[in-house]
Amino acid sequence: MTLDDTTKHSDPVPSHDGQPVPSPELDQLYRDFAAISTAPLWTQTNDLMPFAPAPAAIPFVWRWKTLLDIAQRSGELVPVGRGGERRAIGLANPGLAPTAYATPTLWCAIQYLGARETAPEHRHAQNAFRFVVEGEGVWTVVNGDPVAMRRGDLLLTPGWNFHGHHNDTDQPMAWIDGLDVPFAHDLDFGFFELGSERVTDESSPAISRSEQLWAHPGLTPLSSQGASVSTPLAAYRWEHTDAALRAQLDLEDQGYPATVEQGHAAIKYTNPTSGGDVLPTIRCEFHRLREGAQTPARHEVGSSVWQVFEGRGSVVLNGERMALETGDLFVVPSWTAWSLEAETEFDLFRFSDAPIVERLHFSRTYIPSRA
Amino acid sequence: MTLDDTTKHSDPVPSHDGQPVPSPELDQLYRDFAAISTAPLWTQTNDLMPFAPAPAAIPFVWRWKTLLDIAQRSGELVPVGRGGERRAIGLANPGLAPTAYATPTLWCAIQYLGARETAPEHRHAQNAFRFVVEGEGVWTVVNGDPVAMRRGDLLLTPGWNFHGHHNDTDQPMAWIDGLDVPFAHDLDFGFFELGSERVTDESSPAISRSEQLWAHPGLTPLSSQGASVSTPLAAYRWEHTDAALRAQLDLEDQGYPATVEQGHAAIKYTNPTSGGDVLPTIRCEFHRLREGAQTPARHEVGSSVWQVFEGRGSVVLNGERMALETGDLFVVPSWTAWSLEAETEFDLFRFSDAPIVERLHFSRTYIPSRA
Amino acid sequence: MTLDDTTKHSDPVPSHDGQPVPSPELDQLYRDFAAISTAPLWTQTNDLMPFAPAPAAIPFVWRWKTLLDIAQRSGELVPVGRGGERRAIGLANPGLAPTAYATPTLWCAIQYLGARETAPEHRHAQNAFRFVVEGEGVWTVVNGDPVAMRRGDLLLTPGWNFHGHHNDTDQPMAWIDGLDVPFAHDLDFGFFELGSERVTDESSPAISRSEQLWAHPGLTPLSSQGASVSTPLAAYRWEHTDAALRAQLDLEDQGYPATVEQGHAAIKYTNPTSGGDVLPTIRCEFHRLREGAQTPARHEVGSSVWQVFEGRGSVVLNGERMALETGDLFVVPSWTAWSLEAETEFDLFRFSDAPIVERLHFSRTYIPSRA
Amino acid sequence: MTLDDTTKHSDPVPSHDGQPVPSPELDQLYRDFAAISTAPLWTQTNDLMPFAPAPAAIPFVWRWKTLLDIAQRSGELVPVGRGGERRAIGLANPGLAPTAYATPTLWCAIQYLGARETAPEHRHAQNAFRFVVEGEGVWTVVNGDPVAMRRGDLLLTPGWNFHGHHNDTDQPMAWIDGLDVPFAHDLDFGFFELGSERVTDESSPAISRSEQLWAHPGLTPLSSQGASVSTPLAAYRWEHTDAALRAQLDLEDQGYPATVEQGHAAIKYTNPTSGGDVLPTIRCEFHRLREGAQTPARHEVGSSVWQVFEGRGSVVLNGERMALETGDLFVVPSWTAWSLEAETEFDLFRFSDAPIVERLHFSRTYIPSRA
Repeated sequence: MTLDDTTKHSDPVPSHDGQPVPSPELDQLYRDFAAISTAPLWTQTNDLMPFAPAPAAIPFVWRWKTLLDIAQRSGELVPVGRGGERRAIGLANPGLAPTAYATPTLWCAIQYLGARETAPEHRHAQNAFRFVVEGEGVWTVVNGDPVAMRRGDLLLTPGWNFHGHHNDTDQPMAWIDGLDVPFAHDLDFGFFELGSERVTDESSPAISRSEQLWAHPGLTPLSSQGASVSTPLAAYRWEHTDAALRAQLDLEDQGYPATVEQGHAAIKYTNPTSGGDVLPTIRCEFHRLREGAQTPARHEVGSSVWQVFEGRGSVVLNGERMALETGDLFVVPSWTAWSLEAETEFDLFRFSDAPIVERLHFSRTYIPSRA
Repeated sequence: MTLDDTTKHSDPVPSHDGQPVPSPELDQLYRDFAAISTAPLWTQTNDLMPFAPAPAAIPFVWRWKTLLDIAQRSGELVPVGRGGERRAIGLANPGLAPTAYATPTLWCAIQYLGARETAPEHRHAQNAFRFVVEGEGVWTVVNGDPVAMRRGDLLLTPGWNFHGHHNDTDQPMAWIDGLDVPFAHDLDFGFFELGSERVTDESSPAISRSEQLWAHPGLTPLSSQGASVSTPLAAYRWEHTDAALRAQLDLEDQGYPATVEQGHAAIKYTNPTSGGDVLPTIRCEFHRLREGAQTPARHEVGSSVWQVFEGRGSVVLNGERMALETGDLFVVPSWTAWSLEAETEFDLFRFSDAPIVERLHFSRTYIPSRA
Repeated sequence: MTLDDTTKHSDPVPSHDGQPVPSPELDQLYRDFAAISTAPLWTQTNDLMPFAPAPAAIPFVWRWKTLLDIAQRSGELVPVGRGGERRAIGLANPGLAPTAYATPTLWCAIQYLGARETAPEHRHAQNAFRFVVEGEGVWTVVNGDPVAMRRGDLLLTPGWNFHGHHNDTDQPMAWIDGLDVPFAHDLDFGFFELGSERVTDESSPAISRSEQLWAHPGLTPLSSQGASVSTPLAAYRWEHTDAALRAQLDLEDQGYPATVEQGHAAIKYTNPTSGGDVLPTIRCEFHRLREGAQTPARHEVGSSVWQVFEGRGSVVLNGERMALETGDLFVVPSWTAWSLEAETEFDLFRFSDAPIVERLHFSRTYIPSRA
Repeated sequence: MTLDDTTKHSDPVPSHDGQPVPSPELDQLYRDFAAISTAPLWTQTNDLMPFAPAPAAIPFVWRWKTLLDIAQRSGELVPVGRGGERRAIGLANPGLAPTAYATPTLWCAIQYLGARETAPEHRHAQNAFRFVVEGEGVWTVVNGDPVAMRRGDLLLTPGWNFHGHHNDTDQPMAWIDGLDVPFAHDLDFGFFELGSERVTDESSPAISRSEQLWAHPGLTPLSSQGASVSTPLAAYRWEHTDAALRAQLDLEDQGYPATVEQGHAAIKYTNPTSGGDVLPTIRCEFHRLREGAQTPARHEVGSSVWQVFEGRGSVVLNGERMALETGDLFVVPSWTAWSLEAETEFDLFRFSDAPIVERLHFSRTYIPSRA
């Protein structure tokens, strides 16, 4: 079973591209590779290990109007309850067919809950959040804590927390969900468990208990211990996000460093116990561009999904400009050059797999205009 | 573009499995989903988010004898050089066809270098190592530092280090490569760059410079600063691994805690600057079972590849026993129950994606016999 | 110069306490120790390494009324300006005479600034904060950022930040300063540098720039990078502290875990970039006890200084009860049993050297009633 | 009890040094400060917060010959056993009298154990190590694990580990002890507990169990979990230290970066579970200078103690040169300029409070020749 050291084989003749010269013996070799569940690297190096990321996912825009319309139609035809679990419609990146993944790591859906409906409780190792571009009236109940969902709010459901949603009003409501479902699915990291068919607390308080404990700037309960993997704060309210962005632009006006770059304010939602990302796999940010502002094209390792929250503008993805309106969603695959242009003041929510990239040390950024 | 609050739609009738009642309208809805690059969650929840990991990868064994034989045939037909880069034959998990992935995160290949051959230098963001089950005579040159490869050695090539290999003898040599290529490929994190066609240092020292600096137990150069992402030590030599395992069994014999469990010694290869894993995405371990020892069945999140280094025994994967001999490789997909049985003293090398699992907080272990 | 192995000395006769038998030779030996700048351990083991901490610092209470009165007299006799730098009167623990240390690590003073006065700018490696028990009208200018000081606010001046204070009103103001001056002095870690004689920004904004950037719950500027050693937030405002404490007691009323123990709410002031302490050497907390509440006696490693912010109650220090009123300050030396009793709702500010204890791994707590 | 806002006091007249004008009222004020256990800052700012560290500790050299001689005399007059605990003679920095501290944080002593003697077991929160400049024959038993002490070895006794020593030979032995006793004493962090009067394991193995588990370069037992506060490795053997230093100089000879600076090799002893310091408060290093080498003068925050292990040379402390021979010990107080000059190849052991400085973020280094 050791290498046959005595074999004196003639040198194989290299072709100009590093590939072997075709021959019947080579054909047989390739067939034999397959027969023993192996495959040569030399025929696929370029695909497997390209010079720079060559994503299968493509840059793509989904229109909110269209999504909302089909969500409403789903509301008429599709029940929400045990089994289907959620009336959620995933953004399926055409480059990743037949999956319904937005990117190789991120799942994004519009979820729709009709008047007085309840989405039953369950939990999963996958990490989740919701972001509300319009409407209100639904409470997401996270580990028994009812969390009001309102326009501009980011609501967190870290892995393995039971959660359900109930609409406490006579109006339907729709919002977006973001999860690391593709990542957990493809790497086989996920677990799932069913919970109560009704939410375990049907009250509708204006503020959750998690906010009572945690939504005080720089203050943490002395009773809590150390850093938690995910944020203990279930809701990041719009009034705080808006105020933080407004303040950055004010400081910029006064000549102080505060923004990412001229005319471009942005915040990162963070876990108050660690100062790090709200979820171990997902980063959430909010960006505000001044009217007329334009960001330089950026290449970044890792993928993200954006939703326009308010205003009008465009995104340029690998050189192609796409006009955007409130609610529109778009995907930026890894290393795809992106820049934003603001026709009006332009507010956008973003989530990405940056924590995966950073914790595993694959970070790289390239801004051609600064190179 | 807001939700049409005035629509008073009739309640959809739920079916017993949470799915909507079939109808022409539903068919149309489903067609329309596809037309706008979306997909409903409720029809695929079980597949996307199973109760426990349901890997596409299957447990599988590759025989060293077979691999070595086909590698030798490749040596006669296939050149090694710029373009193909490496004469490496990847283990292609049948469950992951048509890729040549061993698991969703890990790539594993047998690499073969003929007498006096050179594999040219290149570098990539992907992290790599080599493990030698038999033979010697090749030097892998990492950032210009020639590292001898000998039986039982683990050689490291962390991401973005230039590396090439050259065979300094008149004998061929084969070994296994392990990389995070599937992970980096599928998530679009990889970069690649060509280097010198010859290795940049053709000398063949018994010990590398990295070992001179770093292979002293508990001692680090004062000139180095802080923790590095990957290990600065390019080679972990067999004599140290063997001695560490032998010592654990000796301590067990004397009644002291040292082994993982009775009759089962194991070490983790670590980065001396941090005490953590040698690579940010890959954990490397070496296991030694006493003759007759048997480990309890374990379910773990994350996948791994094992190679028998010496001895005879079996692995039981999801209840199926497979006999193993020196050099045989097998894959344990995520959450697949595995246990080892040692017919003789039984030495095995293992690598896994445990750092990905742990850094992103998906760890979970289940040992039925201890539940 | 090696040990004289041939000397066959008679065994020394042990006394019952482990001490040598007195003799002229022993006296000479002890004199010779001193002559060569050495000292035997065996005569001082108990003092050097007691079974539990035996602090030189004593539990002590300073009365606010008395401090304020003498501060006012100082205002009439003592200038504030370059040279003396600050009109600050340190709490001198009687057990630590002749120093003016409150504890072995902490310095605490009442600082007094008359109408329209300015304390010139300087900076030091020592970390500092101010806490305001009453009054307003002074701006502390930290690295050029004017920070209003108002009742109940905690203001931070981390090491090596230039800072000065100016009173923008026609009223005097007094507050307490806390620093790690004893620690830095005794270990020789401190540096000091003079700055501008006037504060570099004499404006008096209601809110500092640091608050504009950082005082948003769970939100951090995307333009900032990583964790900073000390908090970037210069002011923690009373309205947030009060709301956080009120919320904890409300949650307790509703039956949810939130407080440290029944009737005892408390927050830790934290660095939003890390979730850790505001300063590398000093922890700041605020405690609120319900009327009638009483905390169990606690022994903790490390020392702290408390100030009553509002309400009436007592502290019991090593069994001795001392009644407290607004503004009163007391010291808890290391391992001294302390408990609080609230006659009314009872608010207290606390600072301690807990980060030193924890980062160097000397933490230990003992609560006899729970033992 | 509020500030008397109506008082219109005349402005105090400043003197040229920032001090108030002497007056009977000022004298009375100063007396009143003392009466209420307070002290003004303005009279002591320069002492409390100097521009740069102004240590009370002085640079000082103790001669090994002298220490060994008096230790031997102690061996004849002083028993070792319960009560006195150790026959250790501390280096008492003349600047820190009446304490027997080497520096404000570090205690250093020569310990002497006669033929067949035993120092009883105890444990303390204080962290300790031993370093052997000559001799052998004593086993230090740490948590029941007998650890041979031999020339050039560093032996660790992290806080709260039971330990005793026994001399298994007919020769006396002496070595140095290093502890953070001054730090723990002055900050009131220490605890102490008596153990067995005899060591709990009187065997004399060549190698300790901790070494069997941990002294393999880059290999850690899979059975151990995570990073420990202190090193789990009880002994760092001279052959490894010597080899590491030799290798650095060899690499320097070959033109590769390895040493601290030309002709100056050095290693840091590290905790293999973390890559950090062996003890939470004490750093241990070993330095080797080539014959004729000279290091630039360095100012560093924090204090250290050095012992010459072999060779001849000098240390220059704040400009004063002191010749050194084997075994001589010297102290470098904080911010004191130090440089070494090697008459022969010159080996030195060093320990310092660098972990305290670094973990609390007071680090600063100044090398005038590079400024």
